[in-house]
Amino acid sequence: MAKDIKRLNPNSKIYGVDTNTSHLEEALALDLIDVKSSYNDLNLANIVIVGIPVDVMITELPKILGEVNDDCLVMDAGSTKSALCKSLENHPKRRNFLACHPIAGTEFSGPSAAIDGLYQGKTNIICEVEKTAFKLQEKALALYQQLGMRIRYMNPEAHDKHIAYVSHLSHISSFMLGKTVIDKEQNERDIFDMAGSGFESTVRLAKSSPAMWTPIFEQNKENVVETLEEYIQNLEDFKQLLLDDDYKGIYNEMNNTNKIKEILKGIPLNK
Amino acid sequence: MAKDIKRLNPNSKIYGVDTNTSHLEEALALDLIDVKSSYNDLNLANIVIVGIPVDVMITELPKILGEVNDDCLVMDAGSTKSALCKSLENHPKRRNFLACHPIAGTEFSGPSAAIDGLYQGKTNIICEVEKTAFKLQEKALALYQQLGMRIRYMNPEAHDKHIAYVSHLSHISSFMLGKTVIDKEQNERDIFDMAGSGFESTVRLAKSSPAMWTPIFEQNKENVVETLEEYIQNLEDFKQLLLDDDYKGIYNEMNNTNKIKEILKGIPLNK
Repeated sequence: MAKDIKRLNPNSKIYGVDTNTSHLEEALALDLIDVKSSYNDLNLANIVIVGIPVDVMITELPKILGEVNDDCLVMDAGSTKSALCKSLENHPKRRNFLACHPIAGTEFSGPSAAIDGLYQGKTNIICEVEKTAFKLQEKALALYQQLGMRIRYMNPEAHDKHIAYVSHLSHISSFMLGKTVIDKEQNERDIFDMAGSGFESTVRLAKSSPAMWTPIFEQNKENVVETLEEYIQNLEDFKQLLLDDDYKGIYNEMNNTNKIKEILKGIPLNK
Repeated sequence: MAKDIKRLNPNSKIYGVDTNTSHLEEALALDLIDVKSSYNDLNLANIVIVGIPVDVMITELPKILGEVNDDCLVMDAGSTKSALCKSLENHPKRRNFLACHPIAGTEFSGPSAAIDGLYQGKTNIICEVEKTAFKLQEKALALYQQLGMRIRYMNPEAHDKHIAYVSHLSHISSFMLGKTVIDKEQNERDIFDMAGSGFESTVRLAKSSPAMWTPIFEQNKENVVETLEEYIQNLEDFKQLLLDDDYKGIYNEMNNTNKIKEILKGIPLNK
């Protein structure tokens, strides 16, 4: 996001804060940030964007909010919303915070994973918008409009339920697919040679960061377990159709799911 | 393949045979073929490449082999090998046939899905090479070299076992992921809006043709059921770690699977 903001607003000054000092150096070298900074500079900020694992988010956001000035907008970019919104509900500076989930990115992390124009045409889910000061809502919307994002408003519980199906389950299915294949194929060359057959795209998310994803699954445990149970049941049903030699049934299952083609038409891809 | 062959060999003459007459018209209009043809012309062919669903392959290949002349090379491009090789083992023209699985393609089918240079750097698995006349092996290898393919030799049983893990299971996981999400999300707009979060790539294969995939699962039933059982068990284990609040265990599962990143490095993508 810093990359786009700098490109679109050449006069902006971006302060980078990170516990990982080599990432901070890299961000500076890549010209993603202008200054290596710390919480000591938070009082200078006009907008603070927090992109950290969702468990650390819950410990850090109250501190960050405590340091910013009254006109400062603080936004997160986390993949879970209920726990965070709940933890901030009585914060004296709650009105400075806007709960966001910009749905964009790749399986890669760190400064070198930044992509120009990543947010163009993508969706940003905003939760509990009414709890944010109106002027700061406007500031946020102006930025997201500049980035080209579409906005959807949702309550945190609905967000976490939907995103469990459409994102969190995808990551688990991908990680477990990768595990199943790695466990079986002692010869990694066999995996590589055959991966052009579809495996590469279904397993892409299994490259994702465990440090980022473990706390997401923890915070959204209840919804994630529910999606997993439904997914496992569907796989069991498919297996049973195979065991019953019910190929008409298998055809129908796939044919009914083909409509995903129409549903997803027009999604902007990053790659 | 016709598209590449024409580009690389401008003097070649490509005869197209298809039961779907609109596909045949389309192939002609797209300049993928030179002539709309039929089995009546098979005796004119120097090379015959058969790309049809694997169940029809078993009924059609014996007929095709029966019609070609003695110097003609016949190759298939099917995703299963055991049933086909077994069905042809006593065919009087077995030596004219080379069992192939060029591992390349997308979720789309029909003439308009053809991609220039699709096979460059991809793997072609050849089975029972010793059963093919040596001169015809050479003819095939010259073509695959021209297309830029890497060759691997395997027996049909090993092929079907490996490909069940790396390809067939990926398709089922993708179809059932699509089904799970479609069943849950009554509002298709929600799926679309959130699909940038990883869903789009894990569900890509659920756009694939049921007519192509049903007979693949049928012919490779035994291996596919085995992969499904292992996959379901891994998903169950992951769910149990969640229920046990064993987040260290969840981190380790993902961290161990991250090595897929290294395994897949350097795979040429189509998109």
